[in-house]
Amino acid sequence: MKKIAVLPGDGIGPEVMAEAVKVLDAAQKKFGFELAYTWADVGGAGIDNQGKALPEPTVTVCEESDAILFGSVGGPKWEHLPPAEQPERGALLPIRKHFKLHCNLRPAKVFKTLVDACPLRADIAKDGFDILCVRELTGGIYFGDPKGRHGEGPEETAFDTLVYSRFEIERIARNAFDAAMKRSKKVTSVDKANVLTSMVLWREVVTEVAKEYPEVTLDHVYIDNATMQLVKDPHQFDVLLCGNMFGDIISDECAMLTGSMGLLASASLNETGFGLYEPAGGSAPDIAGQGVANPIAQILSATMMLRYSLDLGEAAGTIETAISNVLEAGTHTADIAREKSTVVGTAAMGDAIVAEL
Amino acid sequence: MKKIAVLPGDGIGPEVMAEAVKVLDAAQKKFGFELAYTWADVGGAGIDNQGKALPEPTVTVCEESDAILFGSVGGPKWEHLPPAEQPERGALLPIRKHFKLHCNLRPAKVFKTLVDACPLRADIAKDGFDILCVRELTGGIYFGDPKGRHGEGPEETAFDTLVYSRFEIERIARNAFDAAMKRSKKVTSVDKANVLTSMVLWREVVTEVAKEYPEVTLDHVYIDNATMQLVKDPHQFDVLLCGNMFGDIISDECAMLTGSMGLLASASLNETGFGLYEPAGGSAPDIAGQGVANPIAQILSATMMLRYSLDLGEAAGTIETAISNVLEAGTHTADIAREKSTVVGTAAMGDAIVAEL
Ligand SMILES: CC(C)[C@H](C(=O)O)[C@@H](O)C(=O)O
Ligand SMILES: CC(C)[C@H](C(=O)O)[C@@H](O)C(=O)O
Repeated sequence: MKKIAVLPGDGIGPEVMAEAVKVLDAAQKKFGFELAYTWADVGGAGIDNQGKALPEPTVTVCEESDAILFGSVGGPKWEHLPPAEQPERGALLPIRKHFKLHCNLRPAKVFKTLVDACPLRADIAKDGFDILCVRELTGGIYFGDPKGRHGEGPEETAFDTLVYSRFEIERIARNAFDAAMKRSKKVTSVDKANVLTSMVLWREVVTEVAKEYPEVTLDHVYIDNATMQLVKDPHQFDVLLCGNMFGDIISDECAMLTGSMGLLASASLNETGFGLYEPAGGSAPDIAGQGVANPIAQILSATMMLRYSLDLGEAAGTIETAISNVLEAGTHTADIAREKSTVVGTAAMGDAIVAEL
Repeated sequence: MKKIAVLPGDGIGPEVMAEAVKVLDAAQKKFGFELAYTWADVGGAGIDNQGKALPEPTVTVCEESDAILFGSVGGPKWEHLPPAEQPERGALLPIRKHFKLHCNLRPAKVFKTLVDACPLRADIAKDGFDILCVRELTGGIYFGDPKGRHGEGPEETAFDTLVYSRFEIERIARNAFDAAMKRSKKVTSVDKANVLTSMVLWREVVTEVAKEYPEVTLDHVYIDNATMQLVKDPHQFDVLLCGNMFGDIISDECAMLTGSMGLLASASLNETGFGLYEPAGGSAPDIAGQGVANPIAQILSATMMLRYSLDLGEAAGTIETAISNVLEAGTHTADIAREKSTVVGTAAMGDAIVAEL
């Protein structure tokens, strides 16, 4: 019996979470494993019901679980709050820090049947691409000290510190190389070593770690060039290794380049295999409550959870195949609908995947 | 009589610079103004001939001039040097700092005849787009103190400081709003105010400066979202206002999205109107010396110089029209060649533009 903290959050979070749980329930029957869910408030729901984006009881639920299945947080309702108290920053950053979720994995893959959704020219998109962004998630400029404001008038300054230790870089680099060993054995490290001292260390350490993986090819690319190369020819990349802020930028660019944000999942892991699993897209308040949101990103987040935190890789693979089959059969939610699609809503998509299972 | 410091640099720099000077010579005859050129070493050429990427005599030449026309620097020959001594960092960063070139303008425009070169899907590229990136160039994490390395072993850290003052933000924001007043009166400011303290100040100050420009619409977008929106729908942007590092990233993404890097110019200005003008692309060592490089980015850099530092807007406009006409007539260098192009080399492209003048 494994315990799952289920944090649906805001916007479309609750709707798509319901479908992920539906699919997990079907998988339990089929594969004979057992999950116990505890639901808890987070984000705007945390603010509204318990006064803050990450209420203590929610932290406790997560601590007592084997994994966190996370929906999405944020919306116009909470945008007047100071940034640090808003759902996104107030929930995501402290949860990453508290559970030491240093490794963010974001696969950006174009599904075969959906290549035409890729915003790139057909001759560049070709058969799609399959990139894994490995982003350091608990260090860098997001958490570096000091941060603050000084002075007054025109001379007033505000500052942040971008800092990385050798240890932090080694750890995330190993995550990237380990992942590459299971894929096409190619890592591209993204930095700005031509300008930043922290990135000189980044490049040095990544180069050293690469020696432990003689089968893996390592390239280095500057962040500015990376954003260009992704647009010019995404096929050249397999695993992209980035620090926290560059990873934020690059993984979102990769996600958009697939043309189907509603299909992208992510995992944020710590060193013990504990993790938080969430869709790459946001809470989409504009379509919340209408039953039209695509639940696949949330369901794929659940399969990442089965694979990375619960050692249930077979069940995960079976669900993923079921999703591919449903997509290939032309069953699509509105966000990915094309000419000959059968367009379905959130719940019907969940049902179709369960039926295919 | 105006004095121009001509710094051709490395790779294709000298070849394309020759064409820019050819066009400037023709413009002098036509419009009756006079330029005096002083040529000087920079980048790898500086290292090879005078021992450093930005030799003192070159700085003196620039100080005694009314503007700097810059080629491009860097290449494999100098990549073994420590980052701070390499041509790019060793020349560009100190020259920006020395001449206080705080305002970098990078137009990213798709030429009507070359819309099909845009790497985006035809329905997204539509009739192209026309974005002006306004990047702060002498502050932020590029130059912030402290920067350095501490400690040993796994605990060794390396760090950089992202710092902005109210004054610096106000100054670059005014540059962006002034530019917007001459365009479609829309500024999008790129930040990461949901995570970085420096970017909270950025957003505050930009919002204040906007009040001085009631006709201009101001939007704020997070850097991660900006990289996505550019791919999804570049038409939504007009003037993009960014700090130093985000501007580095965003302006390169915009440049690549035009599909014709060989056509993009840039200006780096200080408060007195003095400036450095350079192509957006690099030194392209792979094609250097072959007479095939596209000189248009260098020629357009020269027209920006006429307009911004020499108050010769009419001559600039006439050269720009000549370039458009040559491109529309199908005279193209190899990098932008398409089915029915007349493909020409570097010098022939310069000649064609002079003839059109
Ligand atoms: C909401 C924000 C703090 C967060 C980040 O920048 O990390 C988000 O963009 C993400 O990538 O998960
Ligand atoms: C070469 C490098 C230091 C420079 C920068 O990052 O500013 C370059 O990328 C640019 O944009 O001019």
